[in-house]
Amino acid sequence: MQVMKLDQLETPCLLLDESRLERNVARMRAHLDSLGVNLRLHVKTAKSIDVVRRVLRSPQDPITVSTLKEAEYFLANGVQNILYAVGMTPNKLEHVTDLRRRGAGLALILDSVEAAHAVAAHARSRADRIPVLIEIDCDGHRSGMLPGDPALIEAGRVLADGGCELRGVMTHAGGSYNCTTVAAIKAMALQERDAVLNAAKALRTAELPCPVVSVGSTPTATCAGNLTGVTEVRAGVFVFFDLVMAGLQVCTLDDIALSVLASVIGHQREKGWIIVDAGWMAMSRDRGSAKQKIDQGYGLVCNAQGEPYPDLIMTDANQEHGVIALRQGARAALPDLPLGTLLRILPNHACATGAQHQAYQVVREGSDTVGATWPRFAGW
Amino acid sequence: MQVMKLDQLETPCLLLDESRLERNVARMRAHLDSLGVNLRLHVKTAKSIDVVRRVLRSPQDPITVSTLKEAEYFLANGVQNILYAVGMTPNKLEHVTDLRRRGAGLALILDSVEAAHAVAAHARSRADRIPVLIEIDCDGHRSGMLPGDPALIEAGRVLADGGCELRGVMTHAGGSYNCTTVAAIKAMALQERDAVLNAAKALRTAELPCPVVSVGSTPTATCAGNLTGVTEVRAGVFVFFDLVMAGLQVCTLDDIALSVLASVIGHQREKGWIIVDAGWMAMSRDRGSAKQKIDQGYGLVCNAQGEPYPDLIMTDANQEHGVIALRQGARAALPDLPLGTLLRILPNHACATGAQHQAYQVVREGSDTVGATWPRFAGW
Repeated sequence: MQVMKLDQLETPCLLLDESRLERNVARMRAHLDSLGVNLRLHVKTAKSIDVVRRVLRSPQDPITVSTLKEAEYFLANGVQNILYAVGMTPNKLEHVTDLRRRGAGLALILDSVEAAHAVAAHARSRADRIPVLIEIDCDGHRSGMLPGDPALIEAGRVLADGGCELRGVMTHAGGSYNCTTVAAIKAMALQERDAVLNAAKALRTAELPCPVVSVGSTPTATCAGNLTGVTEVRAGVFVFFDLVMAGLQVCTLDDIALSVLASVIGHQREKGWIIVDAGWMAMSRDRGSAKQKIDQGYGLVCNAQGEPYPDLIMTDANQEHGVIALRQGARAALPDLPLGTLLRILPNHACATGAQHQAYQVVREGSDTVGATWPRFAGW
Repeated sequence: MQVMKLDQLETPCLLLDESRLERNVARMRAHLDSLGVNLRLHVKTAKSIDVVRRVLRSPQDPITVSTLKEAEYFLANGVQNILYAVGMTPNKLEHVTDLRRRGAGLALILDSVEAAHAVAAHARSRADRIPVLIEIDCDGHRSGMLPGDPALIEAGRVLADGGCELRGVMTHAGGSYNCTTVAAIKAMALQERDAVLNAAKALRTAELPCPVVSVGSTPTATCAGNLTGVTEVRAGVFVFFDLVMAGLQVCTLDDIALSVLASVIGHQREKGWIIVDAGWMAMSRDRGSAKQKIDQGYGLVCNAQGEPYPDLIMTDANQEHGVIALRQGARAALPDLPLGTLLRILPNHACATGAQHQAYQVVREGSDTVGATWPRFAGW
């Protein structure tokens, strides 16, 4: 491959700092090893085999997917141990069976007796003992059955007796994204663990199998201090981190491995605006930091080397235009950034910003050489 | 092609109602014909030759693009008269020249003397008389030079004397998206027209050429009553319309041609929530209606035939999960939507929601047959 420098890239494009990626992965691995639990990487953040290969220790390692297209892609790339962690709907069951016939060790989740009946009926009709985890609600933020709900036992029995493999329980503490202190995230990690342990206990007391006890979110995974009884942790954002995670104190700005490379295309000097060629199409419309203590707008602006400018953020975005300005109350002066200046813009949400791009331009910390281009995919 | 029914599609996916598309195009064509101005379709909304062929009267018709990738794609599909309507930055100029050598009648925009010098220097060095429009600021919302700014004349002279073709002036009344009445949009259309007419007059008074006078936004294009002196209108959203446009009274809900087909995957009955398999990845994070009189959440929910349920919206969204609930203050009851129920969800912003998908599933009003699948592209 021809060696490219950052300033030879056409903007906007997505930069991935491989040095930071490696550090983020090593840190999470060491943490989960010390807690004695497996990582079932959530690949919805990266959607790239090149990234995922740098996280998995072997192709036999387990992953979590959010779409069947992710399952297709990673199966084609040799990863077979896959959990599809979105509630099942009948119009996807034939696709599931097809994936399983082609070698995917694909497991499903569901959170109702109604869904258990639908999946069991399909499993019987296809003579395919589909593995299923029951989703548990640990924080009231989205889906799942309550650990003490009698319907949990009923759903488990429908599955175990109805032609599926009842594999266990799983939950996701999405509420952790709304915590404001590390202490609150630690408490949420305990709450997440206890909800799923209680559900496992209920199933086992009813003499139903429950070998897998699965939890997961990047904040709780990072802050958890004791996961006794949990068999696996699902997390994905930690590979890149982002401004929302930094706002939660789950990482520092120096850990954020993903950024959008943009060029200055104009100025509205009397307003203190710098206009760049990265708008919401490149950054996404995600404004996740808006509800945090520090609102980062559509992103925090760094120079081409990745060093943040004090208080310089993308305050507004149109489709292919971003407005860069100082945040309200900033004491720093607006930097002089002439036409054509390259900037790196750190994203609110790695999953959302990544999804707007078709490839990662891979760089290492302190270098302006693009070492590789890693494709990523999208869609369903 | 095998004939597919809506209920054979795997969800989520993007539906395009071709009957509504045709009506929207015919209405805008008739309106602009009555005003005596040309349409330079903005293709950033559709990003699909199949859609654009249903708008253009011939391949010689002009288009507007927001990325050079759009220019590449439409050139490859036989459309040559292209305006790239984002301010130019030096790292794209070589690509521009390459496109022009391959037959694109590609014109650029810029809004500073600095940029004029950069483009003119490139034009001279490549012996390529690049056509350039100067961007005018008509409403203070983003980019552009003020019509009375002496630097406008200077930039024009740098271009005309420096090796470019000074083609005229253009503006975009993005501020029209923040109007609250049709009267305000009509006033904005006049303001948009007058800004660019004043700029054209200033250039012509300085004996500089200004054959093209270009305006554009879907709200102002729809509501404009007199565009005397304007030579072309740029608009794109009108082909599909969306909830933000309905909130502006620029269209009705029945005009919205784009929706996301989703399936019910669960219920949280005590909370009044229905969970679907379309989250922000399928809808986008765009919350454009949040600042309007009626906040539509992440989208307005319709049945599989496209009829809205009263007050039923997507109140929250995760990556692949949407939470459907009644809006606050709703008098309607939550409909009973069992697991697997298909829903169409109307988007806040057609450009943003479309960008999350790789194809349109094309249906006609009143039919549940998928008549065609039209690919769309993304990226830069």
